[in-house]
Amino acid sequence: MKGLGVTGGAGMMYGAMAAVGLAPAATAAPFRPPSAGDLIGQAPGRHTVAILGAGPAGLAAAYELGKAGYEVTVLEARGRPGGRVWSVRGGTEETDLNGETQRCTFADGHFINVGATRIPQSHITLDYCRELGVEIQAFGNQNANTLVNYASDTPLSKTSITYRAAKADTYGYVSELLQKAASRGALDDVLSADDKHALAEFLTEFGDLGSDGRYVGSTRRGYSSEPGAGTAYGTQLPPHGMSDVIRSGIGRNFAFDFEYDQAMLMLTPVGGMDRIYHAFVDRIGPEKVRFGAEVTAMRNAPDGVTVEFREGGRAQSLTADYLICTVPPHLVPRLDHNLPADVVAALGSAGRTSSGKLGIEYSRRWWETDERIYGGASNTDKDIAQIMFPYDHFNSDRGVVVGYYNTGRRHQAFESLTHRQRLAKALAEGSEIHGDKYRKDIVSSFSGSWARTRYSESAWATWEQTSPEYRLLLQPVQRIYFAGDHLSNAIAWQHGAFTSARSVVEAIHSRVAGTN
Amino acid sequence: MKGLGVTGGAGMMYGAMAAVGLAPAATAAPFRPPSAGDLIGQAPGRHTVAILGAGPAGLAAAYELGKAGYEVTVLEARGRPGGRVWSVRGGTEETDLNGETQRCTFADGHFINVGATRIPQSHITLDYCRELGVEIQAFGNQNANTLVNYASDTPLSKTSITYRAAKADTYGYVSELLQKAASRGALDDVLSADDKHALAEFLTEFGDLGSDGRYVGSTRRGYSSEPGAGTAYGTQLPPHGMSDVIRSGIGRNFAFDFEYDQAMLMLTPVGGMDRIYHAFVDRIGPEKVRFGAEVTAMRNAPDGVTVEFREGGRAQSLTADYLICTVPPHLVPRLDHNLPADVVAALGSAGRTSSGKLGIEYSRRWWETDERIYGGASNTDKDIAQIMFPYDHFNSDRGVVVGYYNTGRRHQAFESLTHRQRLAKALAEGSEIHGDKYRKDIVSSFSGSWARTRYSESAWATWEQTSPEYRLLLQPVQRIYFAGDHLSNAIAWQHGAFTSARSVVEAIHSRVAGTN
Repeated sequence: MKGLGVTGGAGMMYGAMAAVGLAPAATAAPFRPPSAGDLIGQAPGRHTVAILGAGPAGLAAAYELGKAGYEVTVLEARGRPGGRVWSVRGGTEETDLNGETQRCTFADGHFINVGATRIPQSHITLDYCRELGVEIQAFGNQNANTLVNYASDTPLSKTSITYRAAKADTYGYVSELLQKAASRGALDDVLSADDKHALAEFLTEFGDLGSDGRYVGSTRRGYSSEPGAGTAYGTQLPPHGMSDVIRSGIGRNFAFDFEYDQAMLMLTPVGGMDRIYHAFVDRIGPEKVRFGAEVTAMRNAPDGVTVEFREGGRAQSLTADYLICTVPPHLVPRLDHNLPADVVAALGSAGRTSSGKLGIEYSRRWWETDERIYGGASNTDKDIAQIMFPYDHFNSDRGVVVGYYNTGRRHQAFESLTHRQRLAKALAEGSEIHGDKYRKDIVSSFSGSWARTRYSESAWATWEQTSPEYRLLLQPVQRIYFAGDHLSNAIAWQHGAFTSARSVVEAIHSRVAGTN
Repeated sequence: MKGLGVTGGAGMMYGAMAAVGLAPAATAAPFRPPSAGDLIGQAPGRHTVAILGAGPAGLAAAYELGKAGYEVTVLEARGRPGGRVWSVRGGTEETDLNGETQRCTFADGHFINVGATRIPQSHITLDYCRELGVEIQAFGNQNANTLVNYASDTPLSKTSITYRAAKADTYGYVSELLQKAASRGALDDVLSADDKHALAEFLTEFGDLGSDGRYVGSTRRGYSSEPGAGTAYGTQLPPHGMSDVIRSGIGRNFAFDFEYDQAMLMLTPVGGMDRIYHAFVDRIGPEKVRFGAEVTAMRNAPDGVTVEFREGGRAQSLTADYLICTVPPHLVPRLDHNLPADVVAALGSAGRTSSGKLGIEYSRRWWETDERIYGGASNTDKDIAQIMFPYDHFNSDRGVVVGYYNTGRRHQAFESLTHRQRLAKALAEGSEIHGDKYRKDIVSSFSGSWARTRYSESAWATWEQTSPEYRLLLQPVQRIYFAGDHLSNAIAWQHGAFTSARSVVEAIHSRVAGTN
C-alpha cells in the first residue's frame, strides 16, 4: 500500500544521518530462505507455527517457513487473502463499520485495488511475483496529460492545467531565473566560470529557454491544435505568467515523480494486486490457510502457544510451537492475551491512519478519447486529493477510475458518509477538474475506507521507527513474534510486510535449527 | 518511428511564432472519414486508387478509402506490411544493402521494433489501434533506475549514475542555487516578496532542501542498502559535489522526459508495433495488398494513372483513377515517371537520416534481477547513444535488449560494419556502462540499419516544412498524390504518416464525391 507523501519519518532521518556518517551502516545480510534440508539432523520432528493473518506478512512467513518443512496454520478472519491488499471486483460484497453493505457490480475483468496498487522496482514484492509466477505490468504513476487543479491567490486558481504545461512553465521560469541570477554574478562565490557555462547549457535545455535566456513557452506544453499533415504546424498557447506560475503552486506535486518509491517505472500485477496472495495460498497449500477464522485469544504457554478462534460460528483452538502475529498493532490488545504491559503499551502507541478509495465504473473511457489520458493521476487540493486513471483495458469500452485516494483529514471528509454521499462528493469535486463528462456514463461504483473496514480499522500505522515502543516489538514475547509492514521502514508497502516476515522467519528458524 | 532529439525544426519554429501571434492559426477541421454512402448519387461507378507502399500512410489511405467503396490496390515491394515499422522476430530473414543476410532466432514472443516502437498519447496512432482492435500497453520511456554515463571534465566522467541519483543531485543543487540567489535579493527586480516566498516553498520540495536551504542528499537518490524490516533504516550514499554535478552534464537528457512526444505515459501495441499493420491488412482485405510487388514506373495518363511493377519475377502493370505514392521521397525519382522537373527536384531535396537498432537476446534478465530496471533506457554519449530495456515479458527468463538506437554520426559508426562487428562494438560500449554481465548470457542478436535497408535507404526525411519544396509536394501532380510522414509535422512518427494519408484521402474524396 502506498503512503501518499508518507515516506520519510525515521527512515528518511536515519538515511540523512547515515549519509553524513552519524548512523550505523545497516548492511543487512541478504535473506536466505529456510530450505528443505535445514531441519534434518538439526531439529528432527514436527515444528508448528500458527500465523495470525493472511495478509502479505502472514502469507510470506507461511510460504518461507513451508520451504523448510514447518507445519504452518494461517488463521484469517476475512474470507479472502491479502489483508489490506484488496482488489474489489464484480461479486465482492462488504459490510463496513458504518453498517453499510456494498455489492460490487463492475464488469468482468475490471476492479479497484482499494489498498496496495503499485510496486516500486526496488521492492522485493517483484521478487515474489517472479517466484510465484504472478504476471506483472507497468503501472502508470506519472502522466503529462493528467491535470493539476489547486486553489491559489492567482488567476490560475481552481484552473485545470495539464502536468505537461505546468512543468514546462515551472521549469522554464525556474531556469530563466537561475540563469539570470548566475549571469548577473549573484552566485560567483559558489560558481566558477566553468560551472556557470555548464549550468547555462543545462538550464537552456531543461527550461527550453531562448537564446536570450528567456522562457516564452514551449512545445512541451502541448498544442491547442495538434501538429499534423502538410501545413498543420500545430498551434501553441502562450505560457502562463511567471508570477502566476510561481505563486499558484502548480509545481507542488512534481517531486512525487522522483520520490524513491514512486518514480517510474512502477509495476503492478496483471488483473489486480490480490493475484499475489491467491498465488501464495496456492503455493502454501489452501488447506493450511483457514479463512473466516476470527482469532479471539493468543497466549504464550510453557512449551508453546495457544490460539482460540471462531470459525463457522464455533469456538475452536489450536496449539503450536510458535506464533506470528500480523494483526494490526492497535487491534492486538483486543484479543485475550498474556502479553506484558509494556508490549501492550507499545502496540497501543501505533497511530492510525484514515485512507481509502472510491472506484467509479464508466461505460466510456472519456479520459482516453477526449483528454488523451492513458493512466496516471490528476492532482488537486480538494478533498478527493487525486483522481487515478486505469492502467489496464486501454482503448476498451469501459473502465474503473479511482475517484479519490486520500488520507487524513481529506479522507475523513468521506469516511463517515454513506457510499452514495461519497460518490456525490467525489463527482462534485471531480467534475470541477475534468468537467461535466465526469458525471456522465457512470455504471456503478464502490468505496472502501480502511478506518471503517473490519479487521483493519486503519490504513496503516504511524510511529517513529526509532522509538522504544517500535523497537520493543521487534523482539519476540517468548514464542510470539510480531510481523507486518508496521514493523518496517516501508510502512504501507507490501515490501515492508515481506521484509518483516522474512526477519521473523529468520529469527524462528535460527532458534529452531540454528541456521541463518 | 521516433526521432531522438529531432523534434523541433519548422514545427517548433511555427509553434513559437503562433504562440506570439505571428503565424496563422492552423485550426484544421477534424478528419471526417469517407463513408459508405458518400459515392452513391454523387459519383456512381468504380473508383480505383493505386497505392504505392504498405507502410502506415499507404495502409491508412487504403483503409479510409475502402470505407466509401473505393477499389484500392496496394503494391508493396517487401514481403510484409509496415514499412519502417518493422518488428523482427524469430524467423525474420533480411539481406541488407551491405550484402549481409541475417536470420533472427529470438525465442517465441520476443522481438525488436527496428523502427517505430512507442506512441505518444496525443497521436492518432492510438485511435487506429482502438478502431482496429490492436491491444496496447504501456511503454516504459522513463526509468529512475536506468543509467547515465558521459565523458566529462569531472570525477564523474565515464561513471554510471542512476537517473534517480542524477536527478536528485541536479534538482537539489539547482534549487539550492536559485534559493540562494533569490534570498540574497539578486532577483528582486523580477520577484515580489510573495513570489519569493512561493518560490522557496517550491524549491524546498523540488530539490529536497534542508531547512537551511542546502541540498545534502536525498532518499530520492536511492540506497546502498534498502530500507526493510526493523532497524534496517536503509543506507544512503552522499550526493556528488555541486560543481561535479553541474560540469558533468549528467542532466543533459532530463528534458527528454517532458518533451511533447516523449513524456510518459507512452504506449505500444502488445506483441510488436507491426500488429497495427497486420490489422490494417486484415481490414482492408488481404487480396488488395500485393506483397513482393516492386514498382518500377508510375505515370500520369490522360484519364488516370499507370503503374508498372515486378511481382514474382514477372513484369506487370495496372491502371487506376488515382495514385497515392508513399515511397520515400529520395527513392521516387528512381522510378520511371513523367513528373515535372520541379517536383523531382523537390523530392530530391529531402535529406536522409542514418539510424537503426541492434537487439540482443539474453537468457537472463540481469537488468531486472541485478539492477532493478524494468524498461526504460540508459543514456550515454558513446556511439550506442542508449540502451533500451524491454517493456514486456517482465520477470521472465529471457528478453531482448536494444543495444543501440542512435542517429547520424553515431549510427554511421555502426551501419557499414558487419552484424558481428556491430554486436562487438555495442557490447564493448554497453559493458562500460552496465558492467561485465552485459557480455554474458547472450543467446542471439539482430541489427537493422535503415540507410542500408532496401526500399528505405534512410530512417526518415529531413527538411524544413516551410520550404517551397515541401509545400510543392503537398499538391497532387495531376492524379498522383504524395503521402507519408515526410509530408507532415510529425516526421518519423506514425502519426505523421496517418495524418498525411488522411489529408490525401480527403483531397481525393473531395475531388471524386465533392465531400469534405
